[in-house]
Amino acid sequence: MTATIAQVAEARAARSSYRAGAVAPTSGVAHGLVQANLIAVPADWAFDVLLFAQRNPKPCPVLEVLDPGACESTMAPGSDLRTDLPAYRVWRDGELAEEVSDASSAWEEHPDLVSFLIGCSFTFEAGLAEAGIPIRHQELGRNVPMFRTSRACAPAGRLSGDLVVSMRPIPGDRVADAVRISGRYPAVHGAPVHVGDPSGLGITDLDAPEFGDASEVREGEVPVFWACGVTPQAAIMASRPPFALTHAPGHMFVTNVPDADHLA
Amino acid sequence: MTATIAQVAEARAARSSYRAGAVAPTSGVAHGLVQANLIAVPADWAFDVLLFAQRNPKPCPVLEVLDPGACESTMAPGSDLRTDLPAYRVWRDGELAEEVSDASSAWEEHPDLVSFLIGCSFTFEAGLAEAGIPIRHQELGRNVPMFRTSRACAPAGRLSGDLVVSMRPIPGDRVADAVRISGRYPAVHGAPVHVGDPSGLGITDLDAPEFGDASEVREGEVPVFWACGVTPQAAIMASRPPFALTHAPGHMFVTNVPDADHLA
Repeated sequence: MTATIAQVAEARAARSSYRAGAVAPTSGVAHGLVQANLIAVPADWAFDVLLFAQRNPKPCPVLEVLDPGACESTMAPGSDLRTDLPAYRVWRDGELAEEVSDASSAWEEHPDLVSFLIGCSFTFEAGLAEAGIPIRHQELGRNVPMFRTSRACAPAGRLSGDLVVSMRPIPGDRVADAVRISGRYPAVHGAPVHVGDPSGLGITDLDAPEFGDASEVREGEVPVFWACGVTPQAAIMASRPPFALTHAPGHMFVTNVPDADHLA
Repeated sequence: MTATIAQVAEARAARSSYRAGAVAPTSGVAHGLVQANLIAVPADWAFDVLLFAQRNPKPCPVLEVLDPGACESTMAPGSDLRTDLPAYRVWRDGELAEEVSDASSAWEEHPDLVSFLIGCSFTFEAGLAEAGIPIRHQELGRNVPMFRTSRACAPAGRLSGDLVVSMRPIPGDRVADAVRISGRYPAVHGAPVHVGDPSGLGITDLDAPEFGDASEVREGEVPVFWACGVTPQAAIMASRPPFALTHAPGHMFVTNVPDADHLA
């Protein structure tokens, strides 16, 4: 499937504006095109990250791995991962060191950075919305709520951590549709990992997400939990590699690739 | 899905017999359970292999990556990859050095070997057979014919090579079914990469496969080509890592995992 000229023009314009210094969440930008999580680590850690993703494909669906030091994604010709995301997080020894809008200095510091682009739930949200399933956090103008669970990911080398999930309240009569539709996108987390009682995942308070903003579960709705692309960020926090660079939550890499390319 | 007790007992007995020295092709062994291609490389080459697989998922569907030096697959508790395949190939500098029935000495020589278990077309062949689609090479009691194509795989680090495909002749009125059924198994190569004229893949003589045995395309049949798990072996031959260990063609690792677990 090919993206329309208008879609690609919008994606290019967005990346250019971020490159020029604009900082804004990417939700809704270039609707219909894939947005990706970024995680970049020194080459010495790249096998651990790729193996972690291989062993935990639901939270870490790898869309692309760039060569050491490379910055141009094949999903967006002409792009530059050092500058084309609106905001980045720099991690040192597992601690958030700073948030920046230009990551060029990270590549200067670590010229061998290996970048991983990981699928993002924005893709299946478009599918849900098209089926008339309400996306509460979008209605509320908030970021999706994300929770660290009590479920450990499969460790890989020096990397380990708990599964992080995103939660969307879904009306009881649409849960089956939500499962079916998101299940068609295995490259972007696929079907939910849990439906219903949050305590099954070790989540004690739905109003206190660890990442993103609280949402609202209303009468007749069920909380539905999907594996989340923030999981590798949580593994970075838990496993403390000396250096890592990621996107800032909600500030994703906008590609030229249509969501439909990632349908099963 | 759980394997039946009888299936698992047969898989265990097969692995034990190979461990004791038996050498035989594994086609038809423990029917209904996954068999896997093995490729093991020194840890220094593991990232290149995993990245090659990530960039070429159709020929290299990774089922499991073991930790450096580890020999027991999670797909077969109690197994030992050093001894439990009927036959192995040892590669030095990209050349086939020897074929052995016990690979313990390879692990002694390289205690950091990283083993990759890669999906095998035996899994979708079971699905084709159940739908009444004839599997010619099985009827003829031969190995499936495999061909190196003119289509380059996406390179990864020091690894590059051409796509290798397997060919099965399919009656014209069953090609759609064969595509649909194999497409349900993305973890074992998925849908065909090419249907019809072999020259489209740069194959000049269907009677002269590079691996396996020639088959027979009969009146009313179309040659159908699937990405093949021998592709990483061909990349080893082309890219010449100092050392690699693989299964011998047709002599796979028999797991305890049901084929149905790999349905999309």
